[in-house]
Amino acid sequence: MIDLKKQLLEYSRSEYYPFHMPGHKRNMDWDIAHMDITEIDGFDNLHHANGILRDCQKQYAGLVGAKETYFLVNGSTCGILAAISACTDFGGKLLMARNAHKSAYHALYLRHLHPVYLYPGVTLFDLQGAITPEQVETALAKESDIQAVFLTSPTYDGVVSDIGRIAQIVHAAGKILIVDEAHGAHFGFINEFPDSAIHLGADVVIQSVHKTLPALTQTAVLHICSDRVKKELIERFLGIYETSSPSYVLMSSVNQCEQIMRRSGRELLMQLYQNLQWFYEQTKDLQVLRVLTKEDFSDAYAKDPSKILIQTAKTDINAATLDHLLRTQFSLEMEMCSGEYVTALTSVYDTKEGFERLSNALRMIDCTLHEVSKKQPFVGELYAERKQIIPICEAWPMDGETIPISECAGKVSLDFVYLYPPGIPLLVPGEEIDGSLPEKLVQCRKNGLELQGMKDPAGEYLAVTDKVCKAPDHQLY
Amino acid sequence: MIDLKKQLLEYSRSEYYPFHMPGHKRNMDWDIAHMDITEIDGFDNLHHANGILRDCQKQYAGLVGAKETYFLVNGSTCGILAAISACTDFGGKLLMARNAHKSAYHALYLRHLHPVYLYPGVTLFDLQGAITPEQVETALAKESDIQAVFLTSPTYDGVVSDIGRIAQIVHAAGKILIVDEAHGAHFGFINEFPDSAIHLGADVVIQSVHKTLPALTQTAVLHICSDRVKKELIERFLGIYETSSPSYVLMSSVNQCEQIMRRSGRELLMQLYQNLQWFYEQTKDLQVLRVLTKEDFSDAYAKDPSKILIQTAKTDINAATLDHLLRTQFSLEMEMCSGEYVTALTSVYDTKEGFERLSNALRMIDCTLHEVSKKQPFVGELYAERKQIIPICEAWPMDGETIPISECAGKVSLDFVYLYPPGIPLLVPGEEIDGSLPEKLVQCRKNGLELQGMKDPAGEYLAVTDKVCKAPDHQLY
Repeated sequence: MIDLKKQLLEYSRSEYYPFHMPGHKRNMDWDIAHMDITEIDGFDNLHHANGILRDCQKQYAGLVGAKETYFLVNGSTCGILAAISACTDFGGKLLMARNAHKSAYHALYLRHLHPVYLYPGVTLFDLQGAITPEQVETALAKESDIQAVFLTSPTYDGVVSDIGRIAQIVHAAGKILIVDEAHGAHFGFINEFPDSAIHLGADVVIQSVHKTLPALTQTAVLHICSDRVKKELIERFLGIYETSSPSYVLMSSVNQCEQIMRRSGRELLMQLYQNLQWFYEQTKDLQVLRVLTKEDFSDAYAKDPSKILIQTAKTDINAATLDHLLRTQFSLEMEMCSGEYVTALTSVYDTKEGFERLSNALRMIDCTLHEVSKKQPFVGELYAERKQIIPICEAWPMDGETIPISECAGKVSLDFVYLYPPGIPLLVPGEEIDGSLPEKLVQCRKNGLELQGMKDPAGEYLAVTDKVCKAPDHQLY
Repeated sequence: MIDLKKQLLEYSRSEYYPFHMPGHKRNMDWDIAHMDITEIDGFDNLHHANGILRDCQKQYAGLVGAKETYFLVNGSTCGILAAISACTDFGGKLLMARNAHKSAYHALYLRHLHPVYLYPGVTLFDLQGAITPEQVETALAKESDIQAVFLTSPTYDGVVSDIGRIAQIVHAAGKILIVDEAHGAHFGFINEFPDSAIHLGADVVIQSVHKTLPALTQTAVLHICSDRVKKELIERFLGIYETSSPSYVLMSSVNQCEQIMRRSGRELLMQLYQNLQWFYEQTKDLQVLRVLTKEDFSDAYAKDPSKILIQTAKTDINAATLDHLLRTQFSLEMEMCSGEYVTALTSVYDTKEGFERLSNALRMIDCTLHEVSKKQPFVGELYAERKQIIPICEAWPMDGETIPISECAGKVSLDFVYLYPPGIPLLVPGEEIDGSLPEKLVQCRKNGLELQGMKDPAGEYLAVTDKVCKAPDHQLY
């Protein structure tokens, strides 16, 4: 008999330290069954809030300086779906960073939108960089029928784009700027961390409170920050993408989080910053492992230090091996493992002990490793520019043939393909599979990375078609 | 400072008895912060389950006899969206009962579907009845391009349709049957309650586990029960409509619920049934209040006794007043209040004491009431057949004029209008507002019922248009 609760409780009693979501790091007390109610008298209705939930949301908006804040119980996912749906017409055109979360692609699909992609640069360290104001300006100048711009900042790796300048450019062109700040709910409180897009001119900002702040998994907030956005449409689409039975436990958790941040957010963040500074100092002299810093991201406007990236490019192991060592030898559970780096996600509820354990573990592992001549980066290259042959909304429902990924060069993909985490598609339905991609996909699997999005759960086969009857419906910048 | 958690805990310490969701009735112990993790090693990924979550889901499927079961953390809402999306083409045709949850209408909107509506009969008691096999047969015979059939059984009031015969008819026509069994997760365990659509031939069944079983709010399950449904498409759309950060607390709660039902579901349900029998016996001789029974639903195939409907039609108070009396004088919180009846939702976690308190309260209130000559039912009439002038997908995004509901006769609505709960639209965007409707809507508000769906949160204004350039795109049966 599978008992998930028992296994979760057993895990919580283990000595594993969580360098991953959720941001409360299991350091909160909750006894929730007593709080789990439905929309009874006096407790309002999330979808038509005009009582306590309206007040809770206003209180959050007041804390961060938004015009309106909406509590989300279906994650940033539903906020991204709703924001894109509300800020474009059906069949309209969206300028979006290609390193967007899959939910943005799902919005393209559901709303038959035409994407114009902005490709972030790939750094020397196999990581996707920032979107520059110049890229946005060029794209908007070329395509006047773009309705809205969608960017992810910070990225899963903590790369921050220059939202302030981008917002000016977007507004000068009369468009709407939506920022997926899912990984930056802790921004904008103290100067030691980057400022929030809420304060920098974005029109809609989506934040996952559970990622870096102390709140339960699946909670998020959507902020409206200007009058350029139709509030009624945001509410309409949230009403579509979110359950009609929202959990009071989850909503209460967002409200608790807001109160914690209001009361002691600055102190908590300053403590986190100091712990991070200590950690970066302790690990700067590693022999072959490398903890990346702002200087490693030449094109980034800023780098969120709370996402610790540990690179294996100069060592004789890859990131999957480092991840495995940290887990099995040191009981340290990372947030993510890519080709040549692992990500440790830290939050305001981390302890000094956690940083010490990670620092010690890295130094011990580092001693056992050997330097190798620089490996060829390949994960970054996976996210190369692709040619859209068939629109997503037509390609995804198509029935094609399903063939091994090693044999799909030159075909048109009918599936998404992404590495999870972070869930950024490296191939979108309707895109051409260029010659070098199949080999890289096979290599990903060999390196222990998980390919998802395909019909085949093991990630070995891909649905494709030969059909090449359509002209590209988007341009690249 | 608004503190939702504090208010929820205070409420839980009050003497209020919950005759409403969730089905655990606050009788469970949960300390969840320790269980709230993300997709770390060993704990699988809901959207590509191949470990413990796959096993949990298989275990649930095994208990209820489904081919596949999916845990839903965004409520039955996402299950209904996914099921309809997966079983129809974009722009396809769906045969659906008009008394569907708003999420089914949202699926029409998102997927540009053409609905063919089945209108349930309205009983003498102002309640919507069942959909008959004959209705389904006639509709399918007339429109061969219908792809799937969507029914709600049981309804929010506990009215059950003859799913067995309907399934035979639907399958004979080569179509797919989706049953919204959100209110019937407790069906199919013992013969004293109706059987589940899972066992009666439905192809996809959606159940809210939090409504009548002991599970946390916002949890639900989707069952695939035949080979007529493309499993990959169900999974694709669940991946769209559901957060990429699903809560382990919610998922664990579904698994706990399954184990409770496996271990002692039959005993718990038998005890509930006996408590219900006792309650119906105790209240059968009320003077003017009336507790409805199966006999009051002449066209229903069956009636779920766990939804207790208390009617005020023969009394000098309306349901809103009864609801208020039960809450303020007896600390009994009801699930729903309609024009002339209130609904008490019971579950396997109700106590005998709860039934005694409700029975006593009703007898005490009954003594103070006077009989009046039969009132005109009006809520039932609200759900009359309407004429679709403009397709939903075109009408909802339209900009029209916003006018008082009292002045909108003859116009075309651009909003949904529904009473919440249960959230069944009495007016859909694109439908003509017939002459008698405005007056009834005003009456609803006077009677303390909450009108929702309009842009105006207070429910006083409606967005409408005069545009009558389109032929109806659906037929009525």
